[in-house]
This record gives sequence, C-alpha cells and structure tokens, in this order.
Amino acid sequence: MTLRELAERLHCRLDGDGEVEILRVTGIEHAAPGDLTFIANPKYQGFLETTRASAVLVTPGVSRPANGPALLVCDRPYLAFAQALGVLVRAALPGPGIDASAVVAPDARLGDAVSVGALVVIGAGATIGDRTVLFPGTVIGPGATLGADCVIHARVSIRERVQLGNRVVVQDGAVIGSDGFGFVRQADGSHLKIPQHADVVIEDDVEIGANTAIDRPAVGETRIRRGAKIDNLVQVAHGVSVGERTLFAAQVGIAGSTVVEEDVVLAGQVGVAGHLRIGKGVVATAQTGVPNSVDAGTMISGYPAIPNRDWLKSSAVFRNLPALKKRVVELEQRIAELEEKLEACRPSSEG
Amino acid sequence: MTLRELAERLHCRLDGDGEVEILRVTGIEHAAPGDLTFIANPKYQGFLETTRASAVLVTPGVSRPANGPALLVCDRPYLAFAQALGVLVRAALPGPGIDASAVVAPDARLGDAVSVGALVVIGAGATIGDRTVLFPGTVIGPGATLGADCVIHARVSIRERVQLGNRVVVQDGAVIGSDGFGFVRQADGSHLKIPQHADVVIEDDVEIGANTAIDRPAVGETRIRRGAKIDNLVQVAHGVSVGERTLFAAQVGIAGSTVVEEDVVLAGQVGVAGHLRIGKGVVATAQTGVPNSVDAGTMISGYPAIPNRDWLKSSAVFRNLPALKKRVVELEQRIAELEEKLEACRPSSEG
Amino acid sequence: MTLRELAERLHCRLDGDGEVEILRVTGIEHAAPGDLTFIANPKYQGFLETTRASAVLVTPGVSRPANGPALLVCDRPYLAFAQALGVLVRAALPGPGIDASAVVAPDARLGDAVSVGALVVIGAGATIGDRTVLFPGTVIGPGATLGADCVIHARVSIRERVQLGNRVVVQDGAVIGSDGFGFVRQADGSHLKIPQHADVVIEDDVEIGANTAIDRPAVGETRIRRGAKIDNLVQVAHGVSVGERTLFAAQVGIAGSTVVEEDVVLAGQVGVAGHLRIGKGVVATAQTGVPNSVDAGTMISGYPAIPNRDWLKSSAVFRNLPALKKRVVELEQRIAELEEKLEACRPSSEG
Repeated sequence: MTLRELAERLHCRLDGDGEVEILRVTGIEHAAPGDLTFIANPKYQGFLETTRASAVLVTPGVSRPANGPALLVCDRPYLAFAQALGVLVRAALPGPGIDASAVVAPDARLGDAVSVGALVVIGAGATIGDRTVLFPGTVIGPGATLGADCVIHARVSIRERVQLGNRVVVQDGAVIGSDGFGFVRQADGSHLKIPQHADVVIEDDVEIGANTAIDRPAVGETRIRRGAKIDNLVQVAHGVSVGERTLFAAQVGIAGSTVVEEDVVLAGQVGVAGHLRIGKGVVATAQTGVPNSVDAGTMISGYPAIPNRDWLKSSAVFRNLPALKKRVVELEQRIAELEEKLEACRPSSEG
Repeated sequence: MTLRELAERLHCRLDGDGEVEILRVTGIEHAAPGDLTFIANPKYQGFLETTRASAVLVTPGVSRPANGPALLVCDRPYLAFAQALGVLVRAALPGPGIDASAVVAPDARLGDAVSVGALVVIGAGATIGDRTVLFPGTVIGPGATLGADCVIHARVSIRERVQLGNRVVVQDGAVIGSDGFGFVRQADGSHLKIPQHADVVIEDDVEIGANTAIDRPAVGETRIRRGAKIDNLVQVAHGVSVGERTLFAAQVGIAGSTVVEEDVVLAGQVGVAGHLRIGKGVVATAQTGVPNSVDAGTMISGYPAIPNRDWLKSSAVFRNLPALKKRVVELEQRIAELEEKLEACRPSSEG
Repeated sequence: MTLRELAERLHCRLDGDGEVEILRVTGIEHAAPGDLTFIANPKYQGFLETTRASAVLVTPGVSRPANGPALLVCDRPYLAFAQALGVLVRAALPGPGIDASAVVAPDARLGDAVSVGALVVIGAGATIGDRTVLFPGTVIGPGATLGADCVIHARVSIRERVQLGNRVVVQDGAVIGSDGFGFVRQADGSHLKIPQHADVVIEDDVEIGANTAIDRPAVGETRIRRGAKIDNLVQVAHGVSVGERTLFAAQVGIAGSTVVEEDVVLAGQVGVAGHLRIGKGVVATAQTGVPNSVDAGTMISGYPAIPNRDWLKSSAVFRNLPALKKRVVELEQRIAELEEKLEACRPSSEG
C-alpha cells in the first residue's frame, strides 16, 4: 500500500513522498525502509534524524528533517499506529469450516462461516455465533452460547451455560465458568462445598487473557461488562461484576461478590477483597491491596490501599525510617540533657 | 419440592406455609416467588419486609413479618443454604461411558460407571476409580491413579504417577505433577536441571482450582492432605505439604519444602517462602508475605508478615508518616531553641 | 549400579564400601538401604549418625561415623546429587513416533525421532526438531519452529510463528505467544485493540513453567534468552527481553517492554513495571514491586523496591511504628513542660 493510500485510511496529513510503498509497521528502533513507525512522545523527536523508516506518525508541530522520512501527521499517532497495524498486518485467523477431528454435539447450533479447529469439543445444546473462530483444543460446555465474531484461542474452557456476547476475544488456556471457591465449615471442621451452578455472562467486546480464570457463583451471576479488557493470569471470583471498559493488568485478583464500576484501571498484581465496591474510574497502581470500598475517581496505592499521593510520601519516609528513629533517639538524649540542666539551673536561679 | 419436604431434608423448623413449591435457591436481592434464600447475618433482617422469595433460611429469634415469606429456622442458615443447593440444583455431571474420541491406553484400569469425556487421554497403566468423571481434553499420565467419585474438569493435566484419593475435584486447566523448579548452578554460571520425578499425593476430598499448579519434587513427595481446598491460580511448589482442611485462596504461592499444618487459612495472593513450617490454624490476610515459620494459631499480615494486630497499628501510623516526620522536625527546632535559651539563661543564673 | 561406579560417574572420592548397590536417590530424612542422599550444609552432619541411607554425598572434611553410611566426597554435593538423579532416575519420556490421534498438518516438517503424543495438533508449516517430544494435547501453531531435544509437556500452546531453540522444556499448560495486552483509548472511551502479531523467540536451554504466559508484541519481539529458567504462573508481557541464565520464581510478573539483563534472580510474586531495565545480576526478594530501573548487582526488596539492607532496617522500624509515635508524643509533652519551666525560670534568673 502506498503511503498516500495509508494516509487516507488513517485520516492523517501527509508530509513527504506519498508514492513510497509501506510494507510493515514497526517500532522506531528496529525500523527499516518500507516501514511505518510512530513517535507518540515529542521527546523522542530526535529519532527522526536517525531512523531508517520510510514514514513516521507524528503529532502536529513536529518538523521533518532534511532527507528524513515522510511524516503522517495526526492528533493521536499511537491510535493511528494501532489502526495501521490493523490495515497492514495479515490476519492470523483460519478460514471457516469444521475440522474433521472436532467433536461437535449433534444438537449444537453453529452460525454462518464458523471456524472450528482441530480437536475442539462443542457440548450439547451449545450455540456458536456467525464467523466465530474456535482454535484447536478448546472445549465449549453444554448449553454455552457464544455470539458472533468471537475469537477463542487454543485450549480455552468455556464451561456449561456460560454466555459470551459478540466480538469477545479469549486467549489460550483461559477458563470461564469454573466453580467459585465456596465452602461452609461443618461441625467436624470439614468444608462442605456450596454447589456453584449459577451464571457467567461476558458481554460484547470483552477480551480475556491467557490462563485467566473467571468463576461462576452459587447464586446470581458473574458478569464482565461491555468492552472490559482483562490480561493474563487474572482471577475473577464468583459473583464479581466488572464494569464497562475496565482494564485489569496481569495477575490481578478480585475476590467474591465485589463490584468494579466502569472505567476502573487495576495495574499488575493488584488484589481486591470481597464484597466491596470500587467506584467509577478508580486507578490502582501495581500490587495495591484493596481491603475496603473505594470512592469513584480515586487513585490508590499501597497495602493496605491509601490515596496514591499519600502513599508516595509515606513510602519516601519509610525508606528513611531508621534515620527518623535515630533522630527521635537523639531528641530523647538532648531533652534528657536539657531536663538535667534545667534542674541544675533552677536551684541556682532561686539561690 | 414443597417447603415442608425441604424443611425436613435440611432439619429446619418451618414457620409459614409448608405447601409452597420451592423451585430454586438464590440470593436475597434477586429472589422471586418459588425461591428459597437466606439471611446469615441478622443485620440483613430488613430484607424480610421486601423480598419476593417464598421462603427464607434464618437463625432462631428472627420474627416473620405479616405477609412476609415463610421462614426455615436453623442454627446455621448458610450451611442449610449450601445443603439446599445440593438438593435443588440439577447436577451438571455427564453419565458414565467412554467417549469414542478418547484415547485410553489398553492397560489402563477403569472402575465401574466411569465417565470419560471427548478427547480425554489416559496413559499406560493409569487407574481410574469408580464413578469418577473426566471432562473433555483432560490428560491423565502413565501410572497415575485416581480414586472413586472424583470430578476432573476439562483440560486438566494429571502427570505420570500422581495419586489422587476419593472425591477429589479438580477445576479446568489445573496441572498436578509438573516438574519442580529445581536447578543447581554450574561452574560456568549455567543452571543444571535437577530431575524432578518423585511423588505427588492428593488425598481424599481435596479441591483444586482452575489453572492451579502443583509441582512434583526431585525426592520425597508433594502432598495435599485430606479436605484441603485450593482456589484458582495457586502455586504449590515441590515438596510442599499442605495440611488437612487448609484453605488457600486464589493466587497464593507456597515455595519449596514448606510444611503448612492443618486448618491454615491463606487469603488471596499470600506468598510463603520455602523450607518453613506454618503452624496449625494460622490465618494470613490477603497479600501477606511470609519469610519465616509461624507459630500455630497466629493471625498474620504484612510484608514481611507480623501479627495482624501490630500490622494494623503500624499501617495506621504508616499512612501518617509524613506528619510524624514533620513533628520530629518541629521537635528538633523547638529543642534547638530551648538549648539556645538555656545557654543564655545559665550565665545569667550564675551571675 | 554399585557405589564405586557411581563415585566414578560423579567424580567423587569414595569413603566406605564401594560394592553396595545404589538403587535410588532420596532426601536424607526418608532414606532407606540402597539409597544415596546428600548433606549440602555441614549443620546437618548429625544425620549421618541416624540415616538409613547406604551412601551420603558430603563436602571434604566430614568424618564418617563408625557403622555410618559410605561417603561420596566432593566439593559440591548438591550438584553431584542433581547429577546422580540424572544417572539413576528412569527417564519418563515416551519413545519416538506419531500417535494416530495427532492432527499434523501435511506441510509440517518433523525431524528424526520426534515423539508426537495423543491429540497433539501441529499447524501448517510448523517445524519440529530432532528428538523433540510433544506430550498429549499440545497445540503448535502455524509456522512455529521448535529446535531439537525440546520437551513440551501436555496441553501447551505454542502460538503461530513462535520460535523455540534447542533443549527447551515447557511444562503443562504454558502459553507462548498469546496476544500482548495492548489497547489504545478512543474518543468514546472504548479501547481499540492494537493487533499483536510480532515475534516471540525462546532461545536454547530455556525452561518455562506450568501455566506460565508469554505474550507476543505488536512490533519488535519478546525474547527469552539462553538458559533462562521461568517457574509456574509467571507473566512475561509483550516486548520483554529476559536475559541469559535469569531465574524467575513462580507468579513473577514483568510488564511490557522491560529489559531484564543476564543472571537476574526474581523470587516469587515479584512484579516489575514496564519499560524498565533491570541490570545484570540484580536479585529481588519475594513480592518485591519494582517501579524503576535497577542498577546491576543490586539486591532489592519492598514495595516500592529499595536496597534490601535498607528495607530490612525500615521493616524492623515499621513493626514498632506505634511505639515510635508514642515516643514522639512523649517528647512533645516533655518539651512543652521544658518550655514552660524555662519561661518560669528565666524571669527569676533575671530577678
């Protein structure tokens, strides 16, 4: 595709030779002739002098060096970069059809142009929407329903009666609908399993990462709302509600029945206790441990979680705690000396 | 089932119309006519006025509102709720039989009424106990032995020679018997793998969560004792012993050779170092990091772990550390002033 | 094998009866006649009096008790122990051949003596090196290349175009080449997926643990370098570079584009933020949270990470923070009293 065509597709202004052929999208450090790359941050502008890329996505105001690459100018180069990848990178999806080795229940309902890979299992009464792709080794439980245009990578478990919307992407090894961790202690100290047979609903445009686990509850439902994106190795416990457009980075864990409202961002390894409400737009930095509900719009850090600003300040003091303690010890010595001197002083002043 | 029949099954006292038909068990907020629900905590008693449920499990002493639902009275409503789910919720287990697509070694021994799902692999010399269910895509290694009445969900790995007792439940994607992480550094700095071929034993009534990993050791054994319940994405390293009735919440990690005694409770994301002993009944709150052995009966928190009570108090001071530091700075100023004044004072007192 | 033969194989000096037959390698506590065991730490020398082992690997200078076991003396008993396991423990690897139930693309290239287990899937154009073993249920994506002598355990996903070197070991359920977690927020607040189709390279002699996930990036590559060893349930995000001989314990997480240099050791549950450089030989203790780049050779701990020595000292003060605060309060009282007295003192001294 010529750079001119690409500029039109991406709604960018072209500054330079529009006839150059763009073959690849890449990072600026590894770029070669034929590549489109991007500078999201003006501080990397110096790369324009040295890059071998044929074209670079930049914000307005960046000036093109003599003999430098062509520029594609737009307000959000990173967004355009993502779009360029969608245009130029060959999709890896297999074509429609049912592999001969798949085991599909006779009463499963498959939409148009569904792609069922090798050794996929589709249980009784399951429904697969149009153009949905199931990669090899995936197991769809009885009565599960998947919408249209889903991409389910290899070796995923979608358990019985789980419901997926449209355009849901699930990475390899994820488990959706496993039994919630619910037990009740009996008189003899042993744990009675509380049967976990209620619903899991994954709404449209959700992405779920590799080896992530999403449990089903005993009653009620677990729900991941529209447009939420969940990274690898995340735990979503039974009865949790994850809000629209929420982002969970890898290894986040959410305990049972917690409600995460929309547009929340949890960085890597954050843990949230059960039965809480995490308000709209809350941001938790990596490894934050959240024992209580959090008001909307708050940025939190620490274990237990406190406002990020306070945590940064307290952490700065923490690393100097031994020095602070020493200052207290010194104060105690100085004050003891003063007390002694004052005792010595007062009688003489009375004399 | 009528409410009267259910009351008898659950050993509850019936207060209200016993002829009402109970169809479902649900949470109190979503209850509808035909539903049984519960109130475990008297503070939720107000729900009795508004719920649409036909019947509610309550503790003695709760009074039934006029026109309110029927009550089932018992000492432990939550336990009765779990039992009611077991009575009323249709089991999801497939019937006995070996799916034609399963690959079963000729010398594997299968008990009575075993259920082998699609695309299950059973290795040479493996033994599967009576009525055990293997969901699709599970791989049972050579020489592994599973007891009776186990439920092994989809895509589980039970590696060579692993032993499972009776009534063990394993959720999707779990791995039992993977190689322990054992290497020894050689003279050239590279790591020589220590072969990990020893035993893993999972005793009766254990539950293991989705995508959890339980490693085998080089020598000795890894053992999960009777009635322990392990949640999703948990790491149990080589040579660990997990005590009876222990509970591990999601994303817990136990390093090699540690002994966890009976009735321990580790909340989510707790980490325990290797070669330790965690005493009977220890409770660790979420994200606790345990670098040393812990005495029986202790409740711990923090990183590194300290008694929970101390941690709560220290954490309260932590969030105000900048203020504490400021007070120390002020003290230093005041004491400097005092020292100066006293210097000024003393000569005059001597005068 | 006789002890004398084993001594020669392990390059150890023999002290005792070389004709005894060694059948097993085991830990010292469970040793029985016919067993070889080891004492790596002289503080366990007392076990020599009581062990039932036939022979014990020890460092020079350990003296053999009367009627004690034979000794194999060498500088690094633990290394010799690992080597002895390699000699004496029967390998669990299946023989070469392609199971009839495997689904192998016609254009896949398989080397000599490859072992393809039951229900393995090998995609179009994939290459499998000589003597590599694929356990049941593993899925190799189109265009993936595996070197020689790899061992890929059950139910692994190796995604499209991923490259593995020689002697790579992958434990069950691991996912290599899943989509990186890359999204860009659009004007309406929704997240546009950045297509993740670039490369993942796993070099020679790497080991990857059970249910670990290694993501592919949008551009550039994710690379695990020669001899790195990665434990279970680890997250390696898109574009990360993991250095030679690096060790990651279980549940470590590395965010996108971070460079981990050679010989780094990250203990369990450590988290590292994105776009950082972790210098050669850095050691992070368990649960460390790393928000910034770290200089080579540093040992770090804490959240946020600080030098280990500082963290130990600060943590010691942390657990006594309430007492420290009390001391500050007492100082404030004493200083207030002093100020008062001095006020009282000075007029009289002027009198």
